[in-house]
Parts: sequence; C-alpha cells; structure tokens
Amino acid sequence: MEQQMKKFMITGCSGFVSRHFLEYLENHHIESLVKGLDINYPEFKQGNYRYVKFEFEKIDLLDKENIENILYKFQPDYILHLASYSSVAFSWKSPIISFQNNTNIYLNLLEALRKYNLSARILSIGSSEEYGNIEMKDLPVTEDHSLKPGSPYAVARVAQELLSQIYTNGYGLDIVMTRSFNHIGPFQKDIFVVPSFVKQLVEIKKKGGSGVLVAGDLDIVRDFTDVRDVVSAYYLLLTQGRKGEIYNVCSNKGFSLKQIIDKLCNILNIDVDIKIDPRLLRPNDNRIIIGSSEKLKANYAWELIYTIDKSLDDMIMYWQSQNQ
Amino acid sequence: MEQQMKKFMITGCSGFVSRHFLEYLENHHIESLVKGLDINYPEFKQGNYRYVKFEFEKIDLLDKENIENILYKFQPDYILHLASYSSVAFSWKSPIISFQNNTNIYLNLLEALRKYNLSARILSIGSSEEYGNIEMKDLPVTEDHSLKPGSPYAVARVAQELLSQIYTNGYGLDIVMTRSFNHIGPFQKDIFVVPSFVKQLVEIKKKGGSGVLVAGDLDIVRDFTDVRDVVSAYYLLLTQGRKGEIYNVCSNKGFSLKQIIDKLCNILNIDVDIKIDPRLLRPNDNRIIIGSSEKLKANYAWELIYTIDKSLDDMIMYWQSQNQ
Repeated sequence: MEQQMKKFMITGCSGFVSRHFLEYLENHHIESLVKGLDINYPEFKQGNYRYVKFEFEKIDLLDKENIENILYKFQPDYILHLASYSSVAFSWKSPIISFQNNTNIYLNLLEALRKYNLSARILSIGSSEEYGNIEMKDLPVTEDHSLKPGSPYAVARVAQELLSQIYTNGYGLDIVMTRSFNHIGPFQKDIFVVPSFVKQLVEIKKKGGSGVLVAGDLDIVRDFTDVRDVVSAYYLLLTQGRKGEIYNVCSNKGFSLKQIIDKLCNILNIDVDIKIDPRLLRPNDNRIIIGSSEKLKANYAWELIYTIDKSLDDMIMYWQSQNQ
Repeated sequence: MEQQMKKFMITGCSGFVSRHFLEYLENHHIESLVKGLDINYPEFKQGNYRYVKFEFEKIDLLDKENIENILYKFQPDYILHLASYSSVAFSWKSPIISFQNNTNIYLNLLEALRKYNLSARILSIGSSEEYGNIEMKDLPVTEDHSLKPGSPYAVARVAQELLSQIYTNGYGLDIVMTRSFNHIGPFQKDIFVVPSFVKQLVEIKKKGGSGVLVAGDLDIVRDFTDVRDVVSAYYLLLTQGRKGEIYNVCSNKGFSLKQIIDKLCNILNIDVDIKIDPRLLRPNDNRIIIGSSEKLKANYAWELIYTIDKSLDDMIMYWQSQNQ
C-alpha cells in the first residue's frame, strides 16, 4: 500500500485552495502522502484523514537551500505550486515585492528540481489576469488569446508561465500550467471580493436585515469558479495533463459584482444600500473576464459540479458559522 | 547654454553601445550632460569631448537606495537603460541570476522614478530574442508578432517590456521600448559571435593566412545592425519616440554566420578551416531572426548608414589595432 501512495508537495499550503485539494484527495479515496509548505501555519486542522497522510513544514520559499533539501528528501511525484502573492491591489502598492517574490519563489523551486534531476510533475498556477483587457468578441477567452497583463501581479504570472516553458523545453522539466480564473467557496478570506460581500451581508442579516455594504466597482464581470471544481481540475491536470500545455480553469460564465450582491441579498432575504469606496477601485482594472474551459473539458471530461448559487449558499453558511 | 543642455543618464555605461552613443552626441554637436552608471569602469577614455560633458559613477544597480539618490540629484531628462546581463548562453547556465538581475535592476530604476515623481523619458532596451522562433512567412518580423521567448534571458526581456507597460499605463511613467536585434561594430567584445570571428581571423591573417576558426552553429541567420545605426535610433526614440510604444531596431536583412565568415575571409583574403565546438551550440536556438524596421523608419526618417561590409571592415580595422 505504502508503495502505491502518491506523493504530493503543495506550496502555499496554508491557503484555502490547498485545504480543498486535501479534501478532494480524501473524498475521492486517493491514498496520498502530502507535504505542505507555507510561510504561515495553516488555519485548518492537519489530520483526521483516512486516505491522506499530511505533513506540514513551515518554510520561507525564498530560502533556496531549504527548498532544495526538502525536495531532495521528500522526492514528490507531484508538486502543486499554489504559493503566490496573489493580491492585484497589493501588487500596485508594492510592485517590486510582488513581482520578485512571485518569480523568485518559483525559480527556487525549478532550480532545485533541475539541480537534483528530480522528475516530479509540477502544476504551475497562473491567472486569468494574464490576459488583461479582453474584447467582447473574444469572450469567453481561449488559451491561444494574446496576453496583455495589466498589473504587476499579472506580469509576474506571465513571467512564471514563460519560465515554465523555458524549463520544460530547455531543461526537460515536467510542467503543466493553468490560467485560473476567480475562485470562490467556503473558507476563502474576506480580503477577496466575494467573501467580503458575504461576510458583510451575513452581519447585516444578523443585525436585522438592513445596512450599508461597502464595495468597489460593481460593474466588473468575472468568471467565478467554485474552489471545489478548481481543485478537481488541478488533480486531473497533475495526474493526466500534457507536459508544457496551458489550461484555463474557469466556468465559462460571467457575473458582475452587482449580480453577485443581488443573489446574496436574495438568498439572505435582505435589502441593502451600497456605498462605493474609492480606495477599492484599482487602476487599469479589466472590465469583463470570462474564460473558455473547452480545452480542459474536451481532454479530461472535467465538469463543473457547483453552480454559482450553490457556491454562494455554502459561503453564506460558512460565514454564518464564523459569526456566532 | 547650460540651461539648454540635455541631461542623459546611461545605465550599463561601460559597454560598447554607450561608447557609441556618446560619440553620436558629440558628432552631432548635441550639447549634453551625461551621467554614466555601471558596475565596471568603462574601458574608453572619459573626456576630450567638446559638446558632451561626461561623468561616470561606479554603482551596482541592484543597490536601490543608491540609484534613488543619484536619480534624485541628477534629475535626468532622458535615461538610456542599457544595463543588462545580455548573454543568452550565461542565462542557460545561471537562469536565476540572469532573470533576477535583469528584472530587479530595471524595477529599482522605475521605482526610484515613481518614488520621486521624476519625469524623465526612459528608453527600455529589449531584444529580438523576445520573439523566439519565427516562421519563415512572418519574416521580417514586425512589432505586433507574438512573443515566444526561448531562453531565460529572453523571458527577462519580455518581463521588462511588460513591466514598462504597467509603469506607463498604471503609474504614468514615460517609457519607450525597443526590441533591438544583434549589433555589430568596433569595440564590441569577443564574447559575442561576430567579433570573436573577426578577432580569430585577424590573428590567422597575421600568422600567414591559414588556420582553424572555432565556431558554433553556422547556419543560424541574424539581423546584424551596426551599433552606430543603433545609437542613432536610440537618440531618435529618446527624444521623439511615442510613450508606451515598442520599436524594432534592426536592418531588415539577415546573414548566416557562414556568410559573415565568408565576407570576413574575402576582405582579409584568407582561407580557413572551420571547427565546430559543440560547447558553443545552445539549446533551443532560434534559426532565423530578421526584423522589420518599418515602424521606426516610417515615423522618424531613420535610415541605415552602415552596410554589413562597412561594419565588418571597421571591425577588422579595430581588431587589427588591438593586435599589434
């Protein structure tokens, strides 16, 4: 049994995507040994799984030597590279830190694999932000669309993808890439837009059902994919994806933030006033991003399980549980 | 007079492009105050100009604070950003150093300008390597061709260009970009391919006219532009280029390395045997790169002055003068 176990390494393991990935392995009875790395301890419990054996190690991924040692000792079959400074807003405030950390962390990982000639399959997580502004006629956007990254964060993600191709074609590493669109789901922190709405609205509901919601630009449209569908795509791509290929991970549907708020108010049966906070408006923000997931669907029979309403329901339930 | 002087800052000032840029200013009687920065002292004499007042400062451009101070004190009108780790071969050996240094140096410069709200026009020098492999039907390649960088060096150059666009559109900096194709000319070091041929052949000539030339892949075709034409383009783009635009700097012509060797042997009237050194072959090398300079020509009446034969003549003369 031990020999058949798949060995996964997850960077950025303390985030909510990683948590759902572990749940996915467990729920699908995939015997796995998982080594999680992060600069912060995970907030979720690290055990109680039947099929997943999970070890966590606190590490700064900028520490090149440490990464090398861990990789060499653990010899993973699969690496899910989730670690990133993923805030676009932060990248506008601190472009150097955002750009350098995102690319340096990734280069440390790749160089460690190259140095020890390790054959792990890597899933490099990119972002829909790489596309930048997309014309209406090109929606939903496919993987062969040109990249016009519009923020320091997005440039770092494009650089990561280009470096992935160099390491695949030039050094023979086994890398599959995603361009992942906005995720939503339970456990997501309220620094992201949808959970920040859910949290605020759950509080308003608790206080009697009327109040003011603080928001940024409500007209922007995003392709929100439930994180549980996202991690099922990641598992498929890690285990079956084609080396050197890039896959959109998305829902093929777009909702404006206004529509999301309406849906949430409807579920909660409340009515709110909306206050626009100019500090939440970002320069150069892309108006409409909707992705095509045809490539992923056609090749791996990946199907979305979670509707937007189900995702929002579950997020409300999660924030209500946090707000006792 | 002092007030009308244009203030230029040149990074990577100890290289041969900078040297020719200074000559250009002097030869065109452009009253200029030039501050040169480099981690190495320039090998050329730092004076004897009539129109150009040149100051050199030895500095590591990775030293963020130092760059900030120098920029704030000097308040340049124009910044010619030549500094780079420009060896593709080195980037394959040390991808992290090549990538990080190229992007970090540039980010330090941009952040210093942003911090002090300086309005200098920057010319960001990119590379034809950004295009990667180009299909025959797309030659000569124009600026709207997709980018498929094929080396760590090329990825850094693409990242630099994408960051330039972020800083132009998001922060309002005044940046013009080039994709510069291979340069040749006097004073170029023999770590580059054409001067390495010239140097070897000049030595063979001196020893009686027969011998062995060591070379890499001779079938690759490159667009070689004389550095003196390159710097005239840089001056035009610094002073007249359109903010946020990208311009190929190239000759519209391609020569294989074999053709270059034949031309050199012809000029020198010698006949050599060629020995292929496999260490000089690079992974993923692009076969044929020829650029279209139509955009630059159409907008700025830029014309090539130096033919390939004139460039090679002058390079031979230079290496003969070094080889007394």
